[in-house]
Amino acid sequence: MIPMKLSQLDTPCLVLDHGILSRNAQIMGRHIRSLGVTLRPHMKTAKSIDVANIALQGNPRCITVSTLKEAEYFASHGITDIIYAVSMVASKVDRAAPLLRDGVDLKFILNNIDSAQDIAKRASELKIEMTILIELDVGDCRGGMMADSAELLKLGRFLSETPGLKLGGLLCHAGNSYHYRTTQEMQKVAAVEHDAALFATQKLRTAGLDCPIVSIGSTPTAKHAGTLTGITEIRCGVYMFGDAFQAQIHSCTLRDMAVSVLATVICHRRDLNCMLIDAGSLALSQDRSTAADGLSEDVGFGLVMDEQAQSRYNGMRVARAYQEHGIVTCDGDFPFDEYPIGSRVRVFPNHACIMTAQYDDYQVVDGGDEIIHTWHRVNGW
Amino acid sequence: MIPMKLSQLDTPCLVLDHGILSRNAQIMGRHIRSLGVTLRPHMKTAKSIDVANIALQGNPRCITVSTLKEAEYFASHGITDIIYAVSMVASKVDRAAPLLRDGVDLKFILNNIDSAQDIAKRASELKIEMTILIELDVGDCRGGMMADSAELLKLGRFLSETPGLKLGGLLCHAGNSYHYRTTQEMQKVAAVEHDAALFATQKLRTAGLDCPIVSIGSTPTAKHAGTLTGITEIRCGVYMFGDAFQAQIHSCTLRDMAVSVLATVICHRRDLNCMLIDAGSLALSQDRSTAADGLSEDVGFGLVMDEQAQSRYNGMRVARAYQEHGIVTCDGDFPFDEYPIGSRVRVFPNHACIMTAQYDDYQVVDGGDEIIHTWHRVNGW
Repeated sequence: MIPMKLSQLDTPCLVLDHGILSRNAQIMGRHIRSLGVTLRPHMKTAKSIDVANIALQGNPRCITVSTLKEAEYFASHGITDIIYAVSMVASKVDRAAPLLRDGVDLKFILNNIDSAQDIAKRASELKIEMTILIELDVGDCRGGMMADSAELLKLGRFLSETPGLKLGGLLCHAGNSYHYRTTQEMQKVAAVEHDAALFATQKLRTAGLDCPIVSIGSTPTAKHAGTLTGITEIRCGVYMFGDAFQAQIHSCTLRDMAVSVLATVICHRRDLNCMLIDAGSLALSQDRSTAADGLSEDVGFGLVMDEQAQSRYNGMRVARAYQEHGIVTCDGDFPFDEYPIGSRVRVFPNHACIMTAQYDDYQVVDGGDEIIHTWHRVNGW
Repeated sequence: MIPMKLSQLDTPCLVLDHGILSRNAQIMGRHIRSLGVTLRPHMKTAKSIDVANIALQGNPRCITVSTLKEAEYFASHGITDIIYAVSMVASKVDRAAPLLRDGVDLKFILNNIDSAQDIAKRASELKIEMTILIELDVGDCRGGMMADSAELLKLGRFLSETPGLKLGGLLCHAGNSYHYRTTQEMQKVAAVEHDAALFATQKLRTAGLDCPIVSIGSTPTAKHAGTLTGITEIRCGVYMFGDAFQAQIHSCTLRDMAVSVLATVICHRRDLNCMLIDAGSLALSQDRSTAADGLSEDVGFGLVMDEQAQSRYNGMRVARAYQEHGIVTCDGDFPFDEYPIGSRVRVFPNHACIMTAQYDDYQVVDGGDEIIHTWHRVNGW
């Protein structure tokens, strides 16, 4: 079979550069190993066993997931040490039970006793034991409890003492790192995350409770972590792919972006100094993360490069997006002759996790024009 | 088999109310018939043959699609009169050819001669004839050419005279209607759309060119259309489902919204006066259409009602969204006791077309708790 070329693919489609992915994975793996902790990559970004295998090279085979469907998928591909890092509820215990019975070491997170009671009841009925990590809020204001909450010890004891449950440790996610920009600010967020995790660990251990796992992480705080005494593992995910927002917050550079959408120029609007491509709100997602700070460049609905992803003309970007239309503009006069109708462009995302979720497959290239693999993604719930 | 209930579904999932959908479809169908034109519903919103069958009841079996994949899907389900309403390019002719050879009356749109030349070449090579409608820009500033463009006649003649091509008529979409709010403004946009279409039709016909189809439409201008002399058909799609944005621009009311996401409460944050659900940026999309005008209510990432979609507490909405977490807030104190962890809510979209695209299936209810159908959607490209 003659290998497929980029130019033969139907558009829009999702292109993944193998070389850039491998380099990103190696750099983060080395960095986390140098910190003396375990890398537990978050597979919510890539949702692919092929990408996981690259991220796990040289690292223990443990991962983080954001849906039970991901847990089922990765377990079916032989990864058995998994944290499902979204608050567990009793109504999902039945779905998780077969994995536990099959010997998958699937761990859950929680931050309140009411839910723990409901889960314990169902786990006992199903005769399974569920390992639960207490979720801490270290400034993200999303899930979790504060490290100094009076409920922490109460929940720790409940998880330790209740049949059907087991206290697995602590988990936190400094998602608030995304609000900052400078290395100094990032280091401060990373330090707060570290301190809160240690404080809570100490509290549990002083009370005689077991706390084997102390799990922290986000791509920015992983990148800016200092010494990590007392931490056992770091979770991060988007570092594998990078994106324009991660470049904006200095977690990567624009040259580290591994995924993009291949799109076709479908219309020139010389009267409006713009062109249209066949990738809009669905193909690119509506993520506008780079619009947030007003300081660095806002890439609209995506940063546009040429078909080979080698060069970018004058701030070229998707300025507006409709369901299946993207309006591409640039600074100054639009170079229509270099982008004839029917030619192709590559659109790089604001947020790789969200853009990639619109596709069932990656078309994998390695710098060039040739499709070397087609890799599947596990979307949905 | 005992029928499934809402309460037994894994969350997040997409719920479609059959009764509301049918009512929306009947009202629009009646309205368009009373205007004496053909309804050619845009299936980009629903992407489902089951929904199409309801929309087409009492109307000719013709539709509009936004992807060639939709065209293939609907043709395989017996709908053979289809307009693919995104600018056609030569590289997509090979994919369309089998449909034309199978006798599907698939029509395309275009707005420039360069592209028409490339398409004609490939159509001739493949020995097919492609019917092309000229796309007009009636104020949307997206695709199309202006009705008074000097290119109009040139393109019309080229499509009429070139082997492999056939001039099918004109098509325009007043997407700019979405920027307006009052009935008076909408009527004005609808009138501009109508006038531009008539002006261009006249120009073609005066030059001796055939213009069998004059296709206009968007849900708002369909709703607010006056007399439609000279127009042959109206395309609209989101009217079937409605959404919070369509309610904001008075195309529907909040009681006409037919689709919602069923989500589970996974965490209470009494310290932050909010709760978390298991539906975030992926489950709800990141569409923020209701934030646009600053006048009417901004429903955040979705309007939240109780599990039965019967009542809404005090402006309850998804205020923030992460990949798999939605942060639900309301005005005033949060009613935690009425929404215990594990309970369910229904989240109604800003933009139905985008939110529904995150799901492969509809769970269909009819007002109550029982799942009466599971209907498939054709996503992707």
